[in-house]
Amino acid sequence: MQLLTVRLSDGQTSAVVMTPGGARLIASPDVGTLLGDGQKSELVSRAVDSGKMVNLDQMQVVSVVPNPRKILCCGLNYRAHVREMNREEPAFPTLFAKFADTLTGPNDDIFLPQYATDVDWEAELAVVVGANLRNADVDEARRGIAGYTVANDISVRSWQRRTLQWLQGKAFDATTPLGPVLVTPDEFDPASGATITCTVDGKLVQTGTTDDLVFDPAELLSYISQFTGLTPGDLVLTGTPGGVGAGMTPPTFLGNGAVVEVEIQGIGKVSNTVRLG
Amino acid sequence: MQLLTVRLSDGQTSAVVMTPGGARLIASPDVGTLLGDGQKSELVSRAVDSGKMVNLDQMQVVSVVPNPRKILCCGLNYRAHVREMNREEPAFPTLFAKFADTLTGPNDDIFLPQYATDVDWEAELAVVVGANLRNADVDEARRGIAGYTVANDISVRSWQRRTLQWLQGKAFDATTPLGPVLVTPDEFDPASGATITCTVDGKLVQTGTTDDLVFDPAELLSYISQFTGLTPGDLVLTGTPGGVGAGMTPPTFLGNGAVVEVEIQGIGKVSNTVRLG
Repeated sequence: MQLLTVRLSDGQTSAVVMTPGGARLIASPDVGTLLGDGQKSELVSRAVDSGKMVNLDQMQVVSVVPNPRKILCCGLNYRAHVREMNREEPAFPTLFAKFADTLTGPNDDIFLPQYATDVDWEAELAVVVGANLRNADVDEARRGIAGYTVANDISVRSWQRRTLQWLQGKAFDATTPLGPVLVTPDEFDPASGATITCTVDGKLVQTGTTDDLVFDPAELLSYISQFTGLTPGDLVLTGTPGGVGAGMTPPTFLGNGAVVEVEIQGIGKVSNTVRLG
Repeated sequence: MQLLTVRLSDGQTSAVVMTPGGARLIASPDVGTLLGDGQKSELVSRAVDSGKMVNLDQMQVVSVVPNPRKILCCGLNYRAHVREMNREEPAFPTLFAKFADTLTGPNDDIFLPQYATDVDWEAELAVVVGANLRNADVDEARRGIAGYTVANDISVRSWQRRTLQWLQGKAFDATTPLGPVLVTPDEFDPASGATITCTVDGKLVQTGTTDDLVFDPAELLSYISQFTGLTPGDLVLTGTPGGVGAGMTPPTFLGNGAVVEVEIQGIGKVSNTVRLG
């Protein structure tokens, strides 16, 4: 099943389910709220049967979960990337947090200040939580995954490197595109090795496969749940493969007007234009 | 003015204002919600005049802002601590995020797993945001401060040091006591040099003054607002003076049953017992 969140003509948002006949509105304001609703299955069934049909080409698709209570991101988590850096595989996931305000829609422009001259890309598989998880083992965590989507963890490298902690380079408002759809685990399995790519102005800059993660989605959720409870709609970004701009010779960044696209085979893509000013 | 948040007998919470005659209920569920309410001044005035009087000794005081949308914490921010570490004063604040679930009440027990054998204290002045701040200069940020309170940024050092990012050692649920009251800026000015202390089982372990901050509260809020918007009820922890347990010889941590207290002259104290198991 594929779910998404759209903006309606009245400015409100709505969850949407894709059906063979097309997209239909679900009676819930967004996919995150839907996942936390005890009537979730009934709401989706009713939408599949009789939800209002909508034409996605005429609507703005927004961040699939627009307001997670928690967003956690994992650093250095692709084996190929660890090898190319001549590093040891990490014993623990490197985790940092983002605020919900950091998210933006899959096709929205990314606005950053003019001084952000080192804006970098990070193609990422994102996991959306579908259950309450606390001290969950890996099996429970796996069952608690609502689905998968695509993120671009846009990073302002000079701000990220100002101090030991990365937050301020990763948390500019509305700079992390998320979407376009959430694909449920019955239709998408990261262990199958889906291709993840990033292109800049059409040129391939990152490529990897989702079976190359050091810590897979269920392992990440289980680990996180040892210190903080996860709830439906929470979001975990699983890290990026090699090929970021900061690692190129010479380092290469996103200038004003650059179009950056992250795509995961079987999910879809986020495509965004950078606007500096 | 002093504001706090209490739990009522029906399990709900309420904001409270201290008046010369005693504590009176405000018609708002907590101080964070109150700060974001357009009717804030009227609600407080009405409570001062005719709010229901309550006996705080018979109520649980909870985290003064129980559910901030954003919590940011600053590392290494006391000059005396920077000097004792033989470091240069930092050019930028070292920032990381916490989740609202990390907060707990000023007198609540702090529950951590039995394996947490290196639980450390960090006495901190906390700033509560009272306005919408985005790209705010220091003057605007200063005017946007709702008030000050006390925090203990309890840290599980081994988890904090597992990776380059500190989050997982700082984000165990319900381990950051906050309160007891918010004191408004007309009654508390950090630049006056209020004493901040931490004691463990009655023994003084940390001491500093709030005029020794490298980045003062208004500077922190201004800096943060360059990358992410702040809204009423958001929380910024301003860092800790020297004297943490990890820096002692030998390192000293909080065992099961330890009572840890953080006090700021002119605000009050949080007093908590550590429970491992």
